[in-house]
Amino acid sequence: MDKNRLEAFSDGVMAIAITLLILEIRVPEVEEGGLATALAGQWPSYAAYLVSFAVIGIIWVNHHRILAYVAQVDRPLLFLNLLLLVFVAAIPFPTALLARYIRAGWPDANVAAAVYSGGAIGVAVSFQLLWRWIVRDARLLHAHFDVNVLRGFTRRFSLGLIVYPIAMALSFWSAPLTLALHGLVAVFYVFDQLTQRGAIDEAAP
Amino acid sequence: MDKNRLEAFSDGVMAIAITLLILEIRVPEVEEGGLATALAGQWPSYAAYLVSFAVIGIIWVNHHRILAYVAQVDRPLLFLNLLLLVFVAAIPFPTALLARYIRAGWPDANVAAAVYSGGAIGVAVSFQLLWRWIVRDARLLHAHFDVNVLRGFTRRFSLGLIVYPIAMALSFWSAPLTLALHGLVAVFYVFDQLTQRGAIDEAAP
Amino acid sequence: MDKNRLEAFSDGVMAIAITLLILEIRVPEVEEGGLATALAGQWPSYAAYLVSFAVIGIIWVNHHRILAYVAQVDRPLLFLNLLLLVFVAAIPFPTALLARYIRAGWPDANVAAAVYSGGAIGVAVSFQLLWRWIVRDARLLHAHFDVNVLRGFTRRFSLGLIVYPIAMALSFWSAPLTLALHGLVAVFYVFDQLTQRGAIDEAAP
Amino acid sequence: MDKNRLEAFSDGVMAIAITLLILEIRVPEVEEGGLATALAGQWPSYAAYLVSFAVIGIIWVNHHRILAYVAQVDRPLLFLNLLLLVFVAAIPFPTALLARYIRAGWPDANVAAAVYSGGAIGVAVSFQLLWRWIVRDARLLHAHFDVNVLRGFTRRFSLGLIVYPIAMALSFWSAPLTLALHGLVAVFYVFDQLTQRGAIDEAAP
Repeated sequence: MDKNRLEAFSDGVMAIAITLLILEIRVPEVEEGGLATALAGQWPSYAAYLVSFAVIGIIWVNHHRILAYVAQVDRPLLFLNLLLLVFVAAIPFPTALLARYIRAGWPDANVAAAVYSGGAIGVAVSFQLLWRWIVRDARLLHAHFDVNVLRGFTRRFSLGLIVYPIAMALSFWSAPLTLALHGLVAVFYVFDQLTQRGAIDEAAP
Repeated sequence: MDKNRLEAFSDGVMAIAITLLILEIRVPEVEEGGLATALAGQWPSYAAYLVSFAVIGIIWVNHHRILAYVAQVDRPLLFLNLLLLVFVAAIPFPTALLARYIRAGWPDANVAAAVYSGGAIGVAVSFQLLWRWIVRDARLLHAHFDVNVLRGFTRRFSLGLIVYPIAMALSFWSAPLTLALHGLVAVFYVFDQLTQRGAIDEAAP
Repeated sequence: MDKNRLEAFSDGVMAIAITLLILEIRVPEVEEGGLATALAGQWPSYAAYLVSFAVIGIIWVNHHRILAYVAQVDRPLLFLNLLLLVFVAAIPFPTALLARYIRAGWPDANVAAAVYSGGAIGVAVSFQLLWRWIVRDARLLHAHFDVNVLRGFTRRFSLGLIVYPIAMALSFWSAPLTLALHGLVAVFYVFDQLTQRGAIDEAAP
Repeated sequence: MDKNRLEAFSDGVMAIAITLLILEIRVPEVEEGGLATALAGQWPSYAAYLVSFAVIGIIWVNHHRILAYVAQVDRPLLFLNLLLLVFVAAIPFPTALLARYIRAGWPDANVAAAVYSGGAIGVAVSFQLLWRWIVRDARLLHAHFDVNVLRGFTRRFSLGLIVYPIAMALSFWSAPLTLALHGLVAVFYVFDQLTQRGAIDEAAP
């Protein structure tokens, strides 16, 4: 199995999932003069669009990153990658669900937020499995990477494993805060990436 | 015709088909407090999503595999590949159909299951035609592959030709069991791939 | 402008358009026991799906073909290519339109068929413009192709310019026959490609 | 981060967004004999389709252009590129919105036109940020490009920053004229590209 086709297929799925998000924002049907109000009332759709766009964008960045260490694609890696894509491709559904019910009050808003957080947990867990398979031993890696150094990065790719269960718990308290937390994680991640250069790249020779 | 563009186009169609599956899962419209129940009641949609995702994922893996032997793309190969893509690109439709009618009872559930199985037969037959064209003689193959060894793999790529007609017959007895069988075939295939390494790869020099 | 990115973008648009076709086939909503009849009644959707799939598939094959001669991408080529893509990307709309109204009788069925044929004319004209730009002089071609030989192929890429206006005229007589004609053109093209090997390839050194 | 995967992902998103535009044009449901009139009455959808297709097509052309100067992709570039894609991927929504309300009269048509122009401003601003990051210093550029020469092209990529705010202002006067202005900008751009060859290319060695 050629790594390039694995990357191309994964990129394709992620590019499509990120672009399908917009289809979940519907053009409102209003009486005369009501469009501005109706559009303003759709803020949950815009917020969910932006957060999910950032979430998929960051998965894409991290996916590239971990595959950059890989020289050989074996079959478990192939299927773990498909497992990750199951959750990534599904994101438009919880996004639309949360946008629709975020203002519905207890318990519907909380159920929607929990589904959204559950999807994020699915992404984080399958990403973690993929990463752990890659650094299980040196067999799949480019020769110039030290598997022990790479394993030291595991914590870095584990943020979601901690934060998304918290988001899940928060779901039962407040759906808007849950969405905000997902957004904050994304923003944090972007700034972390922008400032902490080095670390991971140091693994490069 | 360049093999790379054939692969890229096929990957594109498969990546899009696999990602469009999620559009068939609708956000339920419910009265206050009914979301959890409504979502749970959508289990056929989730099950059909997972099974069809696995089916397309496996087609993609196998498609890569058989094209890895190919050095030259001729026109029959091109059109046989398009024939395969007709069935793969259509998968979101039987998936949504089966999810919608799986609990409808006789005969609608069975009709839906039969359509789903029929689509799978279409995939299996066109895949088989594509494979048989590739190993018809050594003309299209990379020089270092032995066409006789490759022909020995034909049985391996023929599982669907046996199982999917059985699924078709089963459709008339039980739609949920039919979906379960399709899921089992996918799971079996994944484990088969993970454990039986060798065999096919031995064809490589 | 890099030819690879032009091809990749065009492939992407064509792969997406061909895969979106399936979204136009809706799962029918029926009373108990009516699914088989309802599905059978959707034959125009299946027929339109197959014909449009073949049409886009053939455009894709021909697009590859003519770009294989090209070494340099200039701006007119870029924009003529975008013009072609405007019509290709639009195909899901006339497809759904014709499927919906093909049995509606005069004049709606004929209007739908005329729109479908009009889209095909748009594809054929823009394809022709693209081709003529490529063989206008030797400037854009790979050095080993003879521009005069290539110009001899123009008639071959002009089939649509003759047949699609006939389909347009036929639209006002019978919508189903119009769809059948579009399907026949596609089938003819496939067999023509399969049998008349040589001709175009002879331009290769 | 590999530039090729950045380009491939961006191309994917743009190809999908440009192709999803057609999904916003619905097949009209009419009484017997009313199809031609109904289709003619959908002219805003066709006009919006064409304009947005041209807008995304031009973004794609310019995106290629500015990335052609880039040798190194750093993280800010990665995230500025994602910012651009947020706005590009969203275009199908304002397109459908404007098509739906362009004839609705004050204030709904104007609101829709303003949203459309706002999206265009988002594209123009994020494109500008991306460009300015690229030419901030010579660090990201191919060695043979002179950063000072490239900075001279900034004005060229700034047209949208001037015209789209004008379109925004025009929105409050006339929605159809706003759409026409967006179309004119696209047409202007195409002709500018076709005639003013040189300029930018002169930066090449």
